[in-house]
Amino acid sequence: MAAIEPPGHIAERLRRLREVMRRRKLSAFLVTDPVDQFYLTGFDGEDGAALISAKRVYLITDSRFDEVADRDAPWANKIVRRGGLTEAVGKLLNRRRVRRVGIQSSHMSMHDAAQLRRVAGGARLVATPGVPEELRLCKDATEVATIRRAIDIAQKAFTATKRRIRVGLSERQIAADLEHEMRQLGADAASFPTIVAVGPNGSLPHARPGDRRVERGSAILIDWGARVGGYCSDLTRVMFVARIPPRLGKVYQVVLDAQLRAIQAIRPQVRAGRVDAVARGRITRAGYGKRFGHGLGHGLGLKVHEPPRVSRLSKTELQPGMVFTVEPGVYLSGVGGVRIEDDVLVTSEGVEVLSTLGKDLQEMVL
Amino acid sequence: MAAIEPPGHIAERLRRLREVMRRRKLSAFLVTDPVDQFYLTGFDGEDGAALISAKRVYLITDSRFDEVADRDAPWANKIVRRGGLTEAVGKLLNRRRVRRVGIQSSHMSMHDAAQLRRVAGGARLVATPGVPEELRLCKDATEVATIRRAIDIAQKAFTATKRRIRVGLSERQIAADLEHEMRQLGADAASFPTIVAVGPNGSLPHARPGDRRVERGSAILIDWGARVGGYCSDLTRVMFVARIPPRLGKVYQVVLDAQLRAIQAIRPQVRAGRVDAVARGRITRAGYGKRFGHGLGHGLGLKVHEPPRVSRLSKTELQPGMVFTVEPGVYLSGVGGVRIEDDVLVTSEGVEVLSTLGKDLQEMVL
Repeated sequence: MAAIEPPGHIAERLRRLREVMRRRKLSAFLVTDPVDQFYLTGFDGEDGAALISAKRVYLITDSRFDEVADRDAPWANKIVRRGGLTEAVGKLLNRRRVRRVGIQSSHMSMHDAAQLRRVAGGARLVATPGVPEELRLCKDATEVATIRRAIDIAQKAFTATKRRIRVGLSERQIAADLEHEMRQLGADAASFPTIVAVGPNGSLPHARPGDRRVERGSAILIDWGARVGGYCSDLTRVMFVARIPPRLGKVYQVVLDAQLRAIQAIRPQVRAGRVDAVARGRITRAGYGKRFGHGLGHGLGLKVHEPPRVSRLSKTELQPGMVFTVEPGVYLSGVGGVRIEDDVLVTSEGVEVLSTLGKDLQEMVL
Repeated sequence: MAAIEPPGHIAERLRRLREVMRRRKLSAFLVTDPVDQFYLTGFDGEDGAALISAKRVYLITDSRFDEVADRDAPWANKIVRRGGLTEAVGKLLNRRRVRRVGIQSSHMSMHDAAQLRRVAGGARLVATPGVPEELRLCKDATEVATIRRAIDIAQKAFTATKRRIRVGLSERQIAADLEHEMRQLGADAASFPTIVAVGPNGSLPHARPGDRRVERGSAILIDWGARVGGYCSDLTRVMFVARIPPRLGKVYQVVLDAQLRAIQAIRPQVRAGRVDAVARGRITRAGYGKRFGHGLGHGLGLKVHEPPRVSRLSKTELQPGMVFTVEPGVYLSGVGGVRIEDDVLVTSEGVEVLSTLGKDLQEMVL
């Protein structure tokens, strides 16, 4: 078992975690968020925890995911538990005589922490908010390649679905069609519940697709993404059926201009809050500042919302390898909304816009 | 605002929560799990918290879900926060001079709890594990009706998809087709990622659909469900293409018999562990006890896994209104697996099997 080594990108991630562990004097780190478990071990089961020490990686799961663990992480020390997860972790902490174990305090519930404390014996639980999530902040080459695939599938599915949009189709039908296309193209799932908002529903930034149908003159807002190999894409486009309602057309140009300016401001060392300010300033000067009620964007990776936050108050300094959305929006209650969202990668030179779907106003007329 | 009353089923749920609050001497209860928020207020937004006092219901959300709150809970006291959620809750606790506030300790992370403690002023946070989840244990008439719809849509979609299964189709294609059918029939989403496992993949109880294709003689295990109006269905069937591999055919009869016997044992006052024992005993006597590595079933409602647990150690006494799955399984590594899953409702007389898809071995041959 110990003869097999983890693949290179996993080994590098473990090396970085162990560096943090040394700095914080942790003899072990307990990974409980499934996403971080996948990141650090490659194990893709739905139940488990990983205990990482200076030398070893223990993967604790149950019989349902026993074969999955063998497939995903044959190099790890597998423990198939019979009883509860907490008890199995406690037993292992005792057996390995762990003294200080880092835990994911942003993920572990108060209840689970209290339970774990009871069975942890001599091990002290050390709350380490931000670990190991912060390791995921800058994406490595493997990750960027997978995100590109997630974007590619989302875009191809959108293009196919867009061609089939007709007067009379409901939001629900369009959403179902788009998600089906993504699955057919190889997505594991939609990366979040697809939003299709027709007409005034577009003013609800997170509308659920319902029975409202496309009419002549409708604006259609679609916010969607694919999950591929664990990684998410997240895009938004607004289309117009046959003609552009003048008020929304004006808003569209403002939002698009705000988005393009924000993207141009992206480069290493710039603060994320500064990028938000560029878009927000443009929208505010046009008189819609109060109609842009959310942050400009969010990091994207194994989770569809993850650091960095790209909002007014975000002090995060951009670094090469960060991937996030740029999605300004203006929402007019009772009328509709315009949001334009692309996914970008910070590079050493500046920025690469990973998504490539057209967004000029004239292209958006069906 | 105060002139509007919540609908009857919501009022009844709030009444039951307030009874618990009185018993535990809580002046307010903070609901942070979105599912419980929906249960207690009808609010279906993705961001928010509800603070429930003896007289009032405060709904704290952000501008993205402002209109959703008006639509879903116009009778509540809405607070649209500008800053962080924790800060907004802290401010409200101070303003209302709350002394003891119940919190969902199984849902709130250690990190959020520490933050909340800092801004809660004189309010003491009281960990109340199981509240308000335990209120959801027995389903009311509105809920049972919605679960019936979720099952109906899942079954219709399955029947349509089953008819189209052919040699050469991949697991992924079948899963995509089934999910698309559910959406078309009115589901909001699949209630969990659909499992389609062909041949030996069936021995992984939670396999993800991949590129393995249907062949003559394949066993196909499908585990799927629809989410409708917030509620989940969850079903499993195993089919055989053209012929039944003798070993799996034998296992099928054992699993089916175990399931039918377990269902017959369900009635009020019986312990859930007893129902598991009936199925497990049958499978063990047939020599497959070690190949049935999971519990017999789980509660079903707003979450696809919720109380009651129906497993070996579960001491829960069954009560009318409980809805759960009955899903024994036998998994033969390298060969395949058989799991048969239906959804049942405990009634005052005994049990009603809510799902109605055929499961006799001969019916399962395509």
